[in-house]
Amino acid sequence: MNVDAAGLEREIDELAAISSAPAPAVTRILFSDEDIEARAWLRAKFSAAGLSVREDAVGNLFARWPGSEPWLPAVATGSHTDAIPNAGKFDGVAGVLGALEAVRALQREGFRPRRSIEIIMFTAEEPTRFGLGCLGSRLLSGVLGAAEAADLRDAEGRSFDGLRTGAGCSGSLDSVRLSAGCYRAFLEMHIEQGPLLERAGIDIGAVEKIAAPAAFRVRIQGEGGHAGALLMPARRDASLAAAELALAVERAALESGSADTVGTTGVFRIEPDAINSVPARATLEIDLRDTNLATRDRAEATIRAAADSIAERRRVQIGIEVINSDAPANCDEELVSMICDSTAATGCSVFRMISRAYHDSLFMARVCPTAMLFIPCRNGWSHRPDEFASREAVAKGATVLADALRRLAA
Amino acid sequence: MNVDAAGLEREIDELAAISSAPAPAVTRILFSDEDIEARAWLRAKFSAAGLSVREDAVGNLFARWPGSEPWLPAVATGSHTDAIPNAGKFDGVAGVLGALEAVRALQREGFRPRRSIEIIMFTAEEPTRFGLGCLGSRLLSGVLGAAEAADLRDAEGRSFDGLRTGAGCSGSLDSVRLSAGCYRAFLEMHIEQGPLLERAGIDIGAVEKIAAPAAFRVRIQGEGGHAGALLMPARRDASLAAAELALAVERAALESGSADTVGTTGVFRIEPDAINSVPARATLEIDLRDTNLATRDRAEATIRAAADSIAERRRVQIGIEVINSDAPANCDEELVSMICDSTAATGCSVFRMISRAYHDSLFMARVCPTAMLFIPCRNGWSHRPDEFASREAVAKGATVLADALRRLAA
Repeated sequence: MNVDAAGLEREIDELAAISSAPAPAVTRILFSDEDIEARAWLRAKFSAAGLSVREDAVGNLFARWPGSEPWLPAVATGSHTDAIPNAGKFDGVAGVLGALEAVRALQREGFRPRRSIEIIMFTAEEPTRFGLGCLGSRLLSGVLGAAEAADLRDAEGRSFDGLRTGAGCSGSLDSVRLSAGCYRAFLEMHIEQGPLLERAGIDIGAVEKIAAPAAFRVRIQGEGGHAGALLMPARRDASLAAAELALAVERAALESGSADTVGTTGVFRIEPDAINSVPARATLEIDLRDTNLATRDRAEATIRAAADSIAERRRVQIGIEVINSDAPANCDEELVSMICDSTAATGCSVFRMISRAYHDSLFMARVCPTAMLFIPCRNGWSHRPDEFASREAVAKGATVLADALRRLAA
Repeated sequence: MNVDAAGLEREIDELAAISSAPAPAVTRILFSDEDIEARAWLRAKFSAAGLSVREDAVGNLFARWPGSEPWLPAVATGSHTDAIPNAGKFDGVAGVLGALEAVRALQREGFRPRRSIEIIMFTAEEPTRFGLGCLGSRLLSGVLGAAEAADLRDAEGRSFDGLRTGAGCSGSLDSVRLSAGCYRAFLEMHIEQGPLLERAGIDIGAVEKIAAPAAFRVRIQGEGGHAGALLMPARRDASLAAAELALAVERAALESGSADTVGTTGVFRIEPDAINSVPARATLEIDLRDTNLATRDRAEATIRAAADSIAERRRVQIGIEVINSDAPANCDEELVSMICDSTAATGCSVFRMISRAYHDSLFMARVCPTAMLFIPCRNGWSHRPDEFASREAVAKGATVLADALRRLAA
């Protein structure tokens, strides 16, 4: 398979330059100028490859290479191109541009698909703007309803519905949901975002399971006051309650009994946020994941008990809102085996593994048989400017993906 | 003394309406549109009272009622009108508008001062914009040099020097410093910002000592990563290190051996501040105060030791920068006695107390004999929208202040 490794690397760099953060950092927030510019850039790339492009009502992009029997359920592949603040250039992007290069490699070798092949760029895999990840695939799978989506508001109070139409997406939100059986399969290529493949010197991870994420927003109401005048025993400092809760999240993950449990307080904001003011309010956002739902539920219960105890001891109110709480997904065993076959056919090494991170595949698995292939990234780093996957690693992923697409579309 | 209690209350309300936060909250950040509008409003009030107004190169306002022997050192009084985000309407303002009403009351009763009386509105008592409180009085007293002040930068990187000229302040920063002996005395009236007067049912607190504030900026550098993929033992989460340090600040204050020690982590910011990202960096701002310098220094040493231990255990870097570290001030005993005499003469009750909060008087005490008078405020609340001092409490403060000004200026 003649994947153009250098060309693929060049395209990844081109897309990385469309960013609101200076290089090497990449920031592309949903419906920001950069997100909109990246979409236009991507559409041009799809068109140049002879693919017909459709955009749905929320900005999910579908680039189709029609098969000779276009009435058959298509084979889908893809990922996302949005990026959290100060992220890197491979997360999501490798799976979108890797899929495009896989399609072009198949075209170059004269392959004529029987089933259509469709590359999907999902809207807003990252939860940055609305605090809810995988907006596009949640809507495609029906896990998120049109009415709920329309009501989502960002930190500045702007609605998802207003922003998507402002960004040029038209049509009803109800039209986004996919019908069952619309795809023969969905394959997502992605950087591992963990260190296992690199450490083991393995080219491809065939993902069997995707860890179950849950996200919580915690609002803490204490009492403000003057930092000089309010004596310590009288205080009801919301920030210190938040600090204790963040540490309790860490402890609940460390002591869950499973090395796979991870708990993160990624958002920590206080008000008034002034040096001479006792913090009156705090907002935390907590991400808790496990490959085992029961273990995760136990960790959640531990965190809730800690919140109750902190609230009582510090005389503050703590409200916990569930942003999302999704069940783990199993990948389709036939597809996982096929990925392993494709690695053998293309001379790549493979092992089976789980995905600790959260992907659009989690939701696509509800719609059609789904599998993921991981490629190694340096030190397992992700969501940071020095996230890195080598030219060779990305090219090997695209090669295996192309082989699997050929098997599925033939 | 015929202080117009209702008129004074009305003026406090008028000034509170000049705010970037909706009522009842008041926000007036240095050189914001609201701060500039408040200054214009105040100049008009001063002029209407027949006072001649001068503004120095950093926006300190001086409103002068000339005495019959204008060559004598003047009697000064005043406070500030800037307000932290979501503050109340009395902090600082009571001392500026109370002084103005005291002067008008003296004018109404036909008093002819021998010494000039000067009302000072100090620039930026609150540290919101530059992280350094009492900018105006620090410069007046020479504690802060012109070159240091010029270099100060706000969170958006804008310089103090650029902002003050943008706000219409002209002249050299070197011209701001007061010469020794320029004032006979400085008196500052202020809400207590603590509960003691209200609880005891006392009208006036005669302040003998102002607590010693120190402020620190802490920068923590950990390592970011994906919240789903980065396993717990491998993390170097900057936010959790910050959480532990904020709790250590509280503990150091609680266990200092003195009930007067207060320690506050009023600023707590993390990056990237995204729910699915392990925090890579954190910035804290810490305020530590005591009436006893040695006790405060011990608490600071405890916090620094905690930072070292957290940094080592969590494998993060913690840098601590001293923003300011000021010695406590003693009020002038002759002036404190005079305030007590004035309360007796005007039928008010008084007790002697310390100021736990930080005021322009701390710096004016380096330039001339200084004292403060406190008035009660509800529950001791301050730096919050429901900060409240009754019409009667403010009027009593203005009455005692007027009596003291008459004694000093006669």
